[in-house]
Amino acid sequence: MFDFAIEGICGSARAGRLTLPHGTIATPAFMPVGTQGTVRALSPADLEGAGAEMVLANTYHLHVRPGEDVVAKLGGLHRFMAWDRPLLTDSGGFQVFSLEGFRQVSEDGVEFQSHVDGGRRFLSPERATEIQWILGADVAMAFDHVVPGGADEAAARDALERTLRWLERCAKRHRELQLGVLASGNQTLWPILQGGTHLALRTEGLRRILDLGAWTGLAIGGLSVGEPKPVMHAMLEALEPRLPPECPRYLMGVGFPEDLVAAVERGMDLFDCVAPTRNGRNGSAFTSDGPVNIRNAVFREDDRPLDAACDCETCRSFSRGYLRHLFMAEELLGLRLLSLHNVRFLIRLAAEMRAAVRGDDFPRWAADWRRRYTHPETA
Amino acid sequence: MFDFAIEGICGSARAGRLTLPHGTIATPAFMPVGTQGTVRALSPADLEGAGAEMVLANTYHLHVRPGEDVVAKLGGLHRFMAWDRPLLTDSGGFQVFSLEGFRQVSEDGVEFQSHVDGGRRFLSPERATEIQWILGADVAMAFDHVVPGGADEAAARDALERTLRWLERCAKRHRELQLGVLASGNQTLWPILQGGTHLALRTEGLRRILDLGAWTGLAIGGLSVGEPKPVMHAMLEALEPRLPPECPRYLMGVGFPEDLVAAVERGMDLFDCVAPTRNGRNGSAFTSDGPVNIRNAVFREDDRPLDAACDCETCRSFSRGYLRHLFMAEELLGLRLLSLHNVRFLIRLAAEMRAAVRGDDFPRWAADWRRRYTHPETA
Repeated sequence: MFDFAIEGICGSARAGRLTLPHGTIATPAFMPVGTQGTVRALSPADLEGAGAEMVLANTYHLHVRPGEDVVAKLGGLHRFMAWDRPLLTDSGGFQVFSLEGFRQVSEDGVEFQSHVDGGRRFLSPERATEIQWILGADVAMAFDHVVPGGADEAAARDALERTLRWLERCAKRHRELQLGVLASGNQTLWPILQGGTHLALRTEGLRRILDLGAWTGLAIGGLSVGEPKPVMHAMLEALEPRLPPECPRYLMGVGFPEDLVAAVERGMDLFDCVAPTRNGRNGSAFTSDGPVNIRNAVFREDDRPLDAACDCETCRSFSRGYLRHLFMAEELLGLRLLSLHNVRFLIRLAAEMRAAVRGDDFPRWAADWRRRYTHPETA
Repeated sequence: MFDFAIEGICGSARAGRLTLPHGTIATPAFMPVGTQGTVRALSPADLEGAGAEMVLANTYHLHVRPGEDVVAKLGGLHRFMAWDRPLLTDSGGFQVFSLEGFRQVSEDGVEFQSHVDGGRRFLSPERATEIQWILGADVAMAFDHVVPGGADEAAARDALERTLRWLERCAKRHRELQLGVLASGNQTLWPILQGGTHLALRTEGLRRILDLGAWTGLAIGGLSVGEPKPVMHAMLEALEPRLPPECPRYLMGVGFPEDLVAAVERGMDLFDCVAPTRNGRNGSAFTSDGPVNIRNAVFREDDRPLDAACDCETCRSFSRGYLRHLFMAEELLGLRLLSLHNVRFLIRLAAEMRAAVRGDDFPRWAADWRRRYTHPETA
C-alpha cells in the first residue's frame, strides 16, 4: 500500500513513483495546499485539471474549524473535500509554533489559543496523531517543535531533542491506532527532521530518526523559513548523501519555481507551498519568462495568454488583458484563474524535471530553464 | 440570423426558440449577469456546465472599465469574456439613473460621474448604441430613462416620452452602424418599455414602440424595482394580450424563482438578475424546498447535497456540511459553489417550465412547484 520506486537518477535528482492508498504519484511532485480543506479558490475538478496528484491539508486549521469530529461525521477528509486522490496532513506543529504569544510549550505538548474563537486548545504528539488518524489522510506527519530560521544552536538543539522525543510518542500512538478497533483507515506516518540551520544538529537528528525505525517517507522541516537561500542549498547538499535513497524526501514549505528546481537538483522529491495560490490571489503569476504582476499597465491591451508555453485553462482561454481587467475590477474569477495557472505551472515544472531526470539530462535542462526564467521579457 | 419560433403555448405561458448570431436559446430562459464581463465567481466553463445559453453584460460598467476600446482591441466582448454563445448588453440606462446625485439628465443624454475614477462621462442614445456596437453582443438594448418604482404619473410620463424619443435616436444610430464600413458585426436592437406602475402609460408606450417598426425582441423595464408583487403581476397580465406574440419578451431584472414562475405564467420569455450570484455569495441558496442559508448551524454535520433534485457540480460533489464549513471559514470556493448552484437552479427551473408548457401542463406544474417551494422543510 505504501511504496516508493526510483525510476531514474541524474546527479542527485530523482524521478520516482510513490504509491499510497488513494493512488500513485509521479515524483518530483508539487502538492497544492488546502489549508482549511480547500485549496483556496480552486475546486477538486480544477486541481485534477491542473494535474495535481496529491494535496495537503492542515491539521491545526481543521481541528479548530470545523473540528475533526465534524469531518469524520461528513465521511472523513477525502469525502469532505471531495478529493479522492492522495492526501497528506501536516501535524499542526508549524501552525501552533507560529502562534507566538498565544501558546505555552511543555514537554507534554502545546497549549494554544484558537485563532477562530480564542478558546484554549491543546495539541500533543498523541493528540496530533489522533486528529490526523480521524481526518484519514494517506500520510500523517509527526508533531514537531519548529524554531524560527535564525534560532541559535541551543534553541535548535532543544527543539530537535523535543521533536525526537515527540516522534517516538507519535509513532507509538500511530501504531496503537493502526492496531485498534477503529483501524479501518490506512495511513502512514512520516517523521520531520528539524535542527535549524545547524548542520551538525541536522545530521545527528537524521541518524537518530533513522535509528528509530524504517519510514515510508521523510520530511525536512524548518527550512525556507527566512534563512538565506545558499544556507538551505548547502544544508540539502550535506544531508542528501545521508538520506536513505528508498525514502521519498519531502521538503516542507517549498515553494517558488526556482526553489523547486534547486531542491530537486539536491535530491528532494516532494514539495508543498501556499505560494502559487497566495501569489495568484495577489495578481502575481509564474511564467516561463519569470514572474509577472498582471495588474501592470503593459498588459492592458495584451491579447496573448499569460504564458504561451502553458496548457492550463487560464492560458487556453483568456488574454492577459482580460486577466488584468478581472484584477482591476476586483472580480473573483481573477483570483481563481491566476491560482489555477500558478498551481499548474509548478505541477508542469515538476513533470518537466521528472522527464529531464529520466532522460539523464537534468543539468542542461536546469541551466536552460534558469536562463529563461531569470531573464524575463516582462517584469 | 434573428428568429423567434414559438414551440408551445399553455395559457399565456410560452415555449420558444430564439436564434441569434452566436447560437440558439430555448425559452423560457434565464440569463446570468456578467456585470463587468464576468459572471461573478463563475467561469465560462462553469456557465456552460450549468446550461447557460445566453449571458448579459453591462454597458455602463464595461464603458467605465476597461473601456469599450480595450474590449475591442482584445477581440470584442465574446472573445474578451471567452464566451462564444449569445450575449446581450444592457444600455447603461438603469445604471446611470441609479447614480442619484452623480448625474445630470438632459434631452441630449446623461452626464454622470464614473464610480471607478470619479471622472465625468456622458451617455446618450447614440453613445450607448455605439458602445454596444463596439462591444459586439448579439443583442443591444435601447438607452432608456428609468424612474424609481414609486414615481408619480407626471414623472413616469416624462421618462416614457424621453425613452420613446431616445428609442428613435438609438434605432437611427444602430441602422447607420449596420450600414457603415465597420459593419462586420451582427447585432439586433431591442426597445425597452417604461411607464412605471401606470398601466395607461405602459399600454400607450407599448403601442408607440410597436408603431416605430418591427422589433426582433421587446423588453419590459422598470418593474421589479420595489413595487409590490401584485402590481407587477397585474401589469404583466394587462400588457400580455397587447404584446406581439412573435416577439420574445424580456422581463428585465427578474429574478427570484417564484418571480420567474409568475412571469412565465404571464407570458414572459427571458430573464436576467444578479440574485443567484449575489445571494450565493451571501450563503443563500435556492432549493426545491425553498431558500436556505447555508451558514445555519443545522447544516453542520449534514452530509446531504444542498438540493437532492439538483444536478449541478455543487450538489453532485459536496455536502451541506462542507459548504457550511467553506462559508464559516470564508473560503472563496464557497462563493463559487453556491453561485453555481443558484444559476443552475434558475436554468433548470426555466427548462422545467418549458417542458410543462410543451406538455400543456403548466398550471398543474406551477401549483406543484409552488406547494413544494413555499413549504420548505428547512429554513
